[in-house]
Amino acid sequence: MKFLLNKYLMNLNRGKIKYLVIEEHIKKLIDKSNIKDGEKLPSIRKLAQFLGVNNITIVNAYKRLQSEGYALQKMGSGTYAKKRDINRNLNREYSRVLKKIFSSEIRCYIDFTGETSSGEFFQINLFKDVLNEVLDRDGSSALIYQEPLGYEGLRKSISDIFWNNSVNAENILIVSGAQQGIDVVSKSILNTNDTVIVEKPTYSGALSVFKSRKAEIVEIPVEKNGVDVDKIEKILQKNNVKCFYTMSYFQNPSGISYNDDKKRRILRLAEIYDFYIIEDDYLSELIYDSNIKYNSFKSLDQCDRVIYIKSFSKIFLPGIRIGYLIPPRKFRENIQNSKINTDIATSSLMQRALDLYIRKGMWKDYISELNVKYKDIYIYTEMCISKYLGDKVDFIKPGGGLHFYLRIKENIQIDSISLFREAIGRGVLITPGSLYYKNPLEGKRYFKIGFSHVNKEDIENGIKILNELMI
Amino acid sequence: MKFLLNKYLMNLNRGKIKYLVIEEHIKKLIDKSNIKDGEKLPSIRKLAQFLGVNNITIVNAYKRLQSEGYALQKMGSGTYAKKRDINRNLNREYSRVLKKIFSSEIRCYIDFTGETSSGEFFQINLFKDVLNEVLDRDGSSALIYQEPLGYEGLRKSISDIFWNNSVNAENILIVSGAQQGIDVVSKSILNTNDTVIVEKPTYSGALSVFKSRKAEIVEIPVEKNGVDVDKIEKILQKNNVKCFYTMSYFQNPSGISYNDDKKRRILRLAEIYDFYIIEDDYLSELIYDSNIKYNSFKSLDQCDRVIYIKSFSKIFLPGIRIGYLIPPRKFRENIQNSKINTDIATSSLMQRALDLYIRKGMWKDYISELNVKYKDIYIYTEMCISKYLGDKVDFIKPGGGLHFYLRIKENIQIDSISLFREAIGRGVLITPGSLYYKNPLEGKRYFKIGFSHVNKEDIENGIKILNELMI
Repeated sequence: MKFLLNKYLMNLNRGKIKYLVIEEHIKKLIDKSNIKDGEKLPSIRKLAQFLGVNNITIVNAYKRLQSEGYALQKMGSGTYAKKRDINRNLNREYSRVLKKIFSSEIRCYIDFTGETSSGEFFQINLFKDVLNEVLDRDGSSALIYQEPLGYEGLRKSISDIFWNNSVNAENILIVSGAQQGIDVVSKSILNTNDTVIVEKPTYSGALSVFKSRKAEIVEIPVEKNGVDVDKIEKILQKNNVKCFYTMSYFQNPSGISYNDDKKRRILRLAEIYDFYIIEDDYLSELIYDSNIKYNSFKSLDQCDRVIYIKSFSKIFLPGIRIGYLIPPRKFRENIQNSKINTDIATSSLMQRALDLYIRKGMWKDYISELNVKYKDIYIYTEMCISKYLGDKVDFIKPGGGLHFYLRIKENIQIDSISLFREAIGRGVLITPGSLYYKNPLEGKRYFKIGFSHVNKEDIENGIKILNELMI
Repeated sequence: MKFLLNKYLMNLNRGKIKYLVIEEHIKKLIDKSNIKDGEKLPSIRKLAQFLGVNNITIVNAYKRLQSEGYALQKMGSGTYAKKRDINRNLNREYSRVLKKIFSSEIRCYIDFTGETSSGEFFQINLFKDVLNEVLDRDGSSALIYQEPLGYEGLRKSISDIFWNNSVNAENILIVSGAQQGIDVVSKSILNTNDTVIVEKPTYSGALSVFKSRKAEIVEIPVEKNGVDVDKIEKILQKNNVKCFYTMSYFQNPSGISYNDDKKRRILRLAEIYDFYIIEDDYLSELIYDSNIKYNSFKSLDQCDRVIYIKSFSKIFLPGIRIGYLIPPRKFRENIQNSKINTDIATSSLMQRALDLYIRKGMWKDYISELNVKYKDIYIYTEMCISKYLGDKVDFIKPGGGLHFYLRIKENIQIDSISLFREAIGRGVLITPGSLYYKNPLEGKRYFKIGFSHVNKEDIENGIKILNELMI
């Protein structure tokens, strides 16, 4: 192993803390499998001599490797490399990086991890007027009354404007975003060892919730127009499946949308095999490709088989934390009670403001504007990917939404976890694909680029940097 | 059983839907145990004849009894009365009643179920100014940025103003109220069959969460200055306990507060037996009795054994849905991730507004005012209870908070569930004690009167009505 370490490592990193330099370097070697899982690391004395540092520097480096799960000390025998459980550790590493960016510990200039609209096109003054109108109209009530189902006015607006009154306002439950929707639904319908079918890849936040319910998770690969329905049917023939979690438009992360045929087939299966479809409709407002028509599972559902979850945070404003849920009759009371147990109710002032914003037609105007703006950025991003990464990645064109999902071609050596780590060093943040799979190794060739939080210039710069790193 | 039914029942209820009248009447008889569990109901033909109605009316009434769990049909044998599982059904009944009141289906003039400050003393204009100041200062950011731990400014204010900087802002996690705090903590630290100690009686919302985690719940009776610590120790000697859930001040529902000695003893036990204390500090701002000093478990904790949960919704404004959580170091990362899995983050604009409200000193002023106002109503309510119910109930004087917990004396026949039901008919709403016990029968003699949503005149009227019903 010594030969993998550059003798002049310390000279190359003069002025930096020595044990950190050594630790980082060994970590990279383990990540890249240059040092194998279980391989014995050099003795402290020998490595110190080789690198021209004190023994204590190596001791410190090894201690840190151990504490980060990269090494194992065996009493009286030495220190051994340990391939980390990347599933758990990557998740943790990713959220730590995001936390550091929030707290400005890491300066990241080009952030491709955005999953929501950025709000830069949002006219805050209009919303401010709406808020003031609500406060003048409702006084303290706007901050006092908690309706367990959510503010009745908002539920009526949703019924009226988004569902043309085909859904009764009484059947709508306001939640604090899609994540809470998934959590509340899981608590109501999932028990230990219940089987959940998910798309492969799928949203990591949903995977975490299902795991925390100790459900059996079965992944079905996503294809061009939705998951492989034949595979679903095979699973159903052998297993008692409780529900299928799906993102029907611009699936996160694959970017695919279901065609109506697949949706209808899955709905029929739900009826035959008695399971429910959790539809996470998170960004269907942003359709750029006119061939894509909007028909949710819910709108095609004849047999009350869909648990529909809609987030306003992703398309509208992340900080507003409002979404809604339409449960089937069978689970209605359970899901309502589960919401009450989770946080009683969702912030009432924001619900009232959103209600008025929708009623005044501002919602519609804003969404139209977002469609124009983001379509432009979408086209630009696609152009940059083709131009700079065209021979290094494969990808599909989602035709809507706010991201691309790229697959690194076989002839490129770097995997997406290393790319993620190295890109941070260049001020670029991407989401490694591994987060979206039960077995993170399956995502090693994939990464996601969200373009909603980056301007055009930086999109080009960021993709150029990725090009430089992808060797 | 026929003899229990008034032959003129139908005449007395002329104009009402017949089968509903019969159903309601039989339900009451079952609830009061005038009809015993398992007793055979009269045959359809006989009862129809007796009451002078069609057979189909009785069929419909029996069907409804069945569907509501009040009757059981045995093939070829007839219909039998069924004492309902009051635990599950009472909870459901109670939340249905609350829902109906929200939607104005039931007119309830005197609502003693309030658990929060009412907001009638809240100066909405001050808060409106604060909101506008935030929007002018932060623009769209106020609605866009989501910090996973919560808005940093608010965390700093909390550290500064409520903890005198003894708690680092990095260790504070903003949540959407205490209910979410309990939910997030449970998801992070509780697994199936883990043992949780709770106070008996205790907050039903917490019980529901622990049950949904499939925890073993052990109840320890509340005494004058807190739970019976010797009993806790006995449990600890035989069981592996994960945590103890407690409300340290004006415990809901018993109204008792812990003295420092009990708090210190429990903290010592936590260290010895390696468990954690979930402290739900929900209304400690409202202390009317100057003998009661404020020292939370958290403030006395030397060994990082307390998971502190604070709600702003209960004391401040229910609709604001903000609270915070201070986890011990050991669980910090788990609890933070669990919050992210639950709903990602809490509404950011409201956090910013609350921050500014606290910084400007408005929070302090408002709490002082609430103390004066509610002390006055507290004294008045106590006076009314003593005057009208003095010979019918026992109760302790909490010395703070927003409610009284009353025990119906032995010589009074009615139990609190029947009292709850009959009071609704008179436009008065109380909370039956059964909701606060694992075994609801233990709460049959207790009920709770919250005085924060009722004016003085109605407090007197409501208590007079309860007096009339308590025979």
